[in-house]
Amino acid sequence: LMNAKKIFKNPKIAVIAGDGIGKEVMPEGVRALEAANRKFNIGMQFDHFDFASCDYYLKHGKMMPDDWFDTLMKYDAIFFGAVGMPDILPDHVSLWGSLIQFRRGFDQYVNLRPVRLLPGVPCPLANRKPGDIDFFVVRENTEGEYSSVGGKMFPDTDREFVIQESIFTRQGVDRILKYAFDLAQSRPKKHLTSATKSNGIAITMPYWDERVEAMSKNFADVRTDKYHIDILAAHFVMNPDRFDVVVASNLFGDILSDLGPACTGTIAVAPSGSINPEGKFPSLFEPVHGSAPDIYGKMIANPIGQIWSGAMMLDHLGYPEAGQAIFSAIEKVLASGAGHAPLTPDLGGTAKTDDLGKAIAAAI
Amino acid sequence: LMNAKKIFKNPKIAVIAGDGIGKEVMPEGVRALEAANRKFNIGMQFDHFDFASCDYYLKHGKMMPDDWFDTLMKYDAIFFGAVGMPDILPDHVSLWGSLIQFRRGFDQYVNLRPVRLLPGVPCPLANRKPGDIDFFVVRENTEGEYSSVGGKMFPDTDREFVIQESIFTRQGVDRILKYAFDLAQSRPKKHLTSATKSNGIAITMPYWDERVEAMSKNFADVRTDKYHIDILAAHFVMNPDRFDVVVASNLFGDILSDLGPACTGTIAVAPSGSINPEGKFPSLFEPVHGSAPDIYGKMIANPIGQIWSGAMMLDHLGYPEAGQAIFSAIEKVLASGAGHAPLTPDLGGTAKTDDLGKAIAAAI
Ligand SMILES: CC(C)[C@H](C(=O)O)[C@@H](O)C(=O)O
Ligand SMILES: CC(C)[C@H](C(=O)O)[C@@H](O)C(=O)O
Repeated sequence: LMNAKKIFKNPKIAVIAGDGIGKEVMPEGVRALEAANRKFNIGMQFDHFDFASCDYYLKHGKMMPDDWFDTLMKYDAIFFGAVGMPDILPDHVSLWGSLIQFRRGFDQYVNLRPVRLLPGVPCPLANRKPGDIDFFVVRENTEGEYSSVGGKMFPDTDREFVIQESIFTRQGVDRILKYAFDLAQSRPKKHLTSATKSNGIAITMPYWDERVEAMSKNFADVRTDKYHIDILAAHFVMNPDRFDVVVASNLFGDILSDLGPACTGTIAVAPSGSINPEGKFPSLFEPVHGSAPDIYGKMIANPIGQIWSGAMMLDHLGYPEAGQAIFSAIEKVLASGAGHAPLTPDLGGTAKTDDLGKAIAAAI
Repeated sequence: LMNAKKIFKNPKIAVIAGDGIGKEVMPEGVRALEAANRKFNIGMQFDHFDFASCDYYLKHGKMMPDDWFDTLMKYDAIFFGAVGMPDILPDHVSLWGSLIQFRRGFDQYVNLRPVRLLPGVPCPLANRKPGDIDFFVVRENTEGEYSSVGGKMFPDTDREFVIQESIFTRQGVDRILKYAFDLAQSRPKKHLTSATKSNGIAITMPYWDERVEAMSKNFADVRTDKYHIDILAAHFVMNPDRFDVVVASNLFGDILSDLGPACTGTIAVAPSGSINPEGKFPSLFEPVHGSAPDIYGKMIANPIGQIWSGAMMLDHLGYPEAGQAIFSAIEKVLASGAGHAPLTPDLGGTAKTDDLGKAIAAAI
């Protein structure tokens, strides 16, 4: 699936549930992993942490302890729930104090998100069926439009303005392109689509195009095309069957990797990985959905995003069969339908978070 | 519709067909305008220009003559087809040499695009019918992420990088917000949605949020909310009935105003206006689609985007009834269906561009 480069023996997992429904879905994610752990004899171990959450912030005045880096470096991967409670703390404080720190500190330069139409998940697009849509968004995760350089001038006057740099380095661009081309090459369709906007963002994006063209020379067997982000977003809706691997900058990847799952109806069930492909630092796996304060406390959150993220993590750690077993269990339970499986309300059922989690764990 | 601020007497229109299918759909746009001109006694006059096209570039080595600004300043509006022939000239040359010049030179700081589900247009979303989706995207059109400031360092080495500034000025942000709030206030739902990304783009976007909040104080009767661009794009697919007026920065507006029409199946028929609301400079009206080199020459392009853009132009010039007459003619012809009206192939018919154009002109 993701071309795991090495096998982690007896992998040690740092579990961080975070905020809101992160705390409700995490036990189900761990339950599925435990089931796979037993079945495939992986020897995986879990330790739980309470930081990288707004609760932690309220107690300590910061999102994480000062030694978070050393603490987490002892683990092979981070299994993450969700972070953010905007009523308590602005998102740019909670996120930049946790997730964005991990991405930069652990050089998780790949953000990988599958976009797949699953059986039993209501799809907002007309006339699409499972199998029609099956691709990956590969997002650059450390630089580009997400920069910390810039500021405000002439504050509180009519001349006030803010500026922010977008920064694209050759190293940063080339390594994400290489990952995406490798992934495309490993798949049957061998097709890579680059998200650009070189007609409008006329300094950084022509450079991105240039690097894509250079990299494509090393992958003669991969069919490569590019679309401007505006029309690319349109094609996600109109022609989602056209894609195989889509590579994008940090911001464009952020947009496409929410839009893709939305088009398949899976925004509540989609997983993501923030990956350091070399395994030099721990990678992080988390559902695409956030902490959803509006439904927190009711135990109605769908745990599939968390469980599927666990499958991706196993894949990354060198246990693709175990990952596949979890994914197959998800598909099987979804395909049974609300009459037969304990599905959560978003899937048309009336079950609780842990009912669905237990059913999936049992199917592994 | 768009709160025209003044009535232009005997309006003078500069017609620029541009490239590719621009040349095929423009005669139909003019045909519909001529019909409305006669019916409503508007006294509109047309002059045609060949610049702002790649043909012009091939002859003159530049996209436009040096006196383009003075030439076009004599007109009340510009009726534009499409520009760009990427096989001949890179888009960032052709576009920055024409459209982007107009937007900046004529201070067309509003880009306005209706998103509307029309009868007879195949919609990619499941279970949506005409009337369900009806909103505007209001895009900032002169600054933000589309800046010309930046460059490359350490070229051709491993340390190579490019940077580009995003620049948001208080003047630039406040005037687009004011336009959008005014528009929202004039509509029955009085609902404004702001596109942001303040959790990730943590310098410019928190500023955008701040200005939205300040402006909303002057519009107590307008319900205001905000979404991060990633989940907002997702909601365009999942809940397009939720929106009324969506205001966005240059880049986010670019993406949303292609995505919106894609969700309603109208990317080939949607119009847009690049507007200087004060009428100090000519505004420009053009279809959302581009020059489509792949179908150029076959006379199968759908002319409705061009014709609907003409309706928006009449509205802007102070002739809302005439604009409405054109729009109603479009709806009427579309609603008759392929058995009864000469529809182009994208709409399920076999008619040519001019057949459909003539049918609409006749219905005005
Ligand atoms: C062609 C391009 C520069 C332009 C833009 O990005 O503004 C186009 O996509 C548009 O929306 O008018
Ligand atoms: C919460 C936010 C900072 C984050 C991002 O924009 O990267 C999120 O949207 C994501 O995709 O992980």
